[in-house]
Amino acid sequence: MMDKDSFRSIQSIGRTQLIDELMEHATFEKSSVLQSSGDDTAVLEDRDSYQLLTSETFMEGVDFDLTYFPLHHLGYKIAVAAVSDVYAMNGHPEVVLVNLAVPNKISVDMLKEIYKGIEAASKDFKFQIVGGDLTASHQILSASISCYGTVTKDLITYRKGARKNDAICVTGDLGGAIAGLRILMREKKYWEEKEEQQSFEPDLAEYEYVVKRQLVPIARKDVIDKLDELNIIPTSMIDITQGLVSELKHLANASEVGAHIYGATIPISLKTRHVADEMKEDVDKYALYGGEDFELMFTLPEDDVEKLTDEFSDFAVIGKIIDREEGVKMQQAEGDMILFDDPEDD
Amino acid sequence: MMDKDSFRSIQSIGRTQLIDELMEHATFEKSSVLQSSGDDTAVLEDRDSYQLLTSETFMEGVDFDLTYFPLHHLGYKIAVAAVSDVYAMNGHPEVVLVNLAVPNKISVDMLKEIYKGIEAASKDFKFQIVGGDLTASHQILSASISCYGTVTKDLITYRKGARKNDAICVTGDLGGAIAGLRILMREKKYWEEKEEQQSFEPDLAEYEYVVKRQLVPIARKDVIDKLDELNIIPTSMIDITQGLVSELKHLANASEVGAHIYGATIPISLKTRHVADEMKEDVDKYALYGGEDFELMFTLPEDDVEKLTDEFSDFAVIGKIIDREEGVKMQQAEGDMILFDDPEDD
Repeated sequence: MMDKDSFRSIQSIGRTQLIDELMEHATFEKSSVLQSSGDDTAVLEDRDSYQLLTSETFMEGVDFDLTYFPLHHLGYKIAVAAVSDVYAMNGHPEVVLVNLAVPNKISVDMLKEIYKGIEAASKDFKFQIVGGDLTASHQILSASISCYGTVTKDLITYRKGARKNDAICVTGDLGGAIAGLRILMREKKYWEEKEEQQSFEPDLAEYEYVVKRQLVPIARKDVIDKLDELNIIPTSMIDITQGLVSELKHLANASEVGAHIYGATIPISLKTRHVADEMKEDVDKYALYGGEDFELMFTLPEDDVEKLTDEFSDFAVIGKIIDREEGVKMQQAEGDMILFDDPEDD
Repeated sequence: MMDKDSFRSIQSIGRTQLIDELMEHATFEKSSVLQSSGDDTAVLEDRDSYQLLTSETFMEGVDFDLTYFPLHHLGYKIAVAAVSDVYAMNGHPEVVLVNLAVPNKISVDMLKEIYKGIEAASKDFKFQIVGGDLTASHQILSASISCYGTVTKDLITYRKGARKNDAICVTGDLGGAIAGLRILMREKKYWEEKEEQQSFEPDLAEYEYVVKRQLVPIARKDVIDKLDELNIIPTSMIDITQGLVSELKHLANASEVGAHIYGATIPISLKTRHVADEMKEDVDKYALYGGEDFELMFTLPEDDVEKLTDEFSDFAVIGKIIDREEGVKMQQAEGDMILFDDPEDD
């Protein structure tokens, strides 16, 4: 039997440390690989461009719940999660591979719904589905998408590269996806109770915005196209999948800088605020730790901020890059300063 | 509730038909994509070379059983399954992405064992591990590997391309992997009984060859290197992952030809025969339908067969390409002919 003391659970160490420990076993190196793990995608050298590779896995019961997640939306969302990483390198997706592990409860037509969702994303984000793998599964549906993309060499934008005094910018608004999840989980509970009590069918119309943020998130191709049109190359960029704080630490660590953000400037939709109020929860926590918004965070010199502001309104400046020793911190509306300490461990 | 009559189960239609139906939803096309699904990998246009993309998913309880599958070997085998598809295009792997969905029962050190196995494969087959995704899972370990490889343009070998009278060649020997699985499943049963009865510990030494074929299969880089050295480009090629019959049908369909093979010429190890005898099973079935041998099947004109025979011994000619109308068939040692009918459906 296993010695219990020697069992280091995966939950007991941070995700970043876990990936670092695993990548110690990636010792065989190819000269064409410019970036392995540690950014939104892997980066390979080509001639005029770099090749970008990334993948995402969604597990039933962990990343989605089929009782409220339509299969069409599931396919769309997994594709968005994969291509969002490519946009975060300032690149564009080319093709994806779709791997599905499918339990008996899923029919051919249900599987097609997932593919239709991926197809809808393929049209929105201009990539081709080129194959993948299908395998049987006991009970749980598992889906993963690998995306191959490209970026012109002089446009590539890593997490590293942020410089002191750069403005920290965030697109769209944050916390909507977790607010939508809260609503869907509450509806699921209602629905389960209704099974016994035959009570009312709740109306989701007033929560449409946040529910869509959870079920049908958008990857920010429009932002990448706009930056390109204006000849603006961010000094660093990352997509917000794990919540603002986590991604801000990733960006600051990779760039070896600190960050000072202002809580009051974090973009949060009124609709997201209403959900938090209804749930008696702190909306700032939704925005800071919620994740799955798939918005982009990037850093720009002051001049470029003005240039972008003139042409594009769907972003906010939430703070600026400071010296590394000053850490990653947030000034709250009331004036208190929160230090997101231990920046190496998230 | 779901109408039961409308539930087409995935088992009720063939894998090939299922993939065809799903790929109907891959309507957005990029001009750079030369081959989507329908071969061992997807193929993308580059300048002097083609880019190859493929992925494999392994689910606990379906593709492996942790009671007898060491995690190190599991990592190695999944990597072999992915790179084998790249060799089947006459290409070489460059990098892989590793996606793991991990339940609580797996510790950090167990996860590292999987990575060490992938690392061992990375040294044998010269690819770099460049990242991937880690997610939590309920109960079941799921692992998928996506591989990116390249092939010089004039060397690429598709499933299509086999011509009438070409020799059908197979590397190594077949049926060993399924023989190994039979032994491991029997040992598992012994072991489960031993838990109650405290009986003997069975010795696997005499089954070492077949057990290794199951747990630590080899991708045939050596064959690809030898073909290159001898300037031989097969007219068509496929790797044998689902059993000889299934792959022969894939190759014949893609090439729009028939195939005539001779049962007596199919390479089968004596060690595999011994296991089949012990199990009172038909060893030909192991070779024809067993799968997971990761050997290569390719077609060559007669002249190239002689050239290869002079320099390389680890392959066998098992038949020849015939007209499509004649079908895909096998002549047995006793003279009977088996027609593997309905070649469109496997």
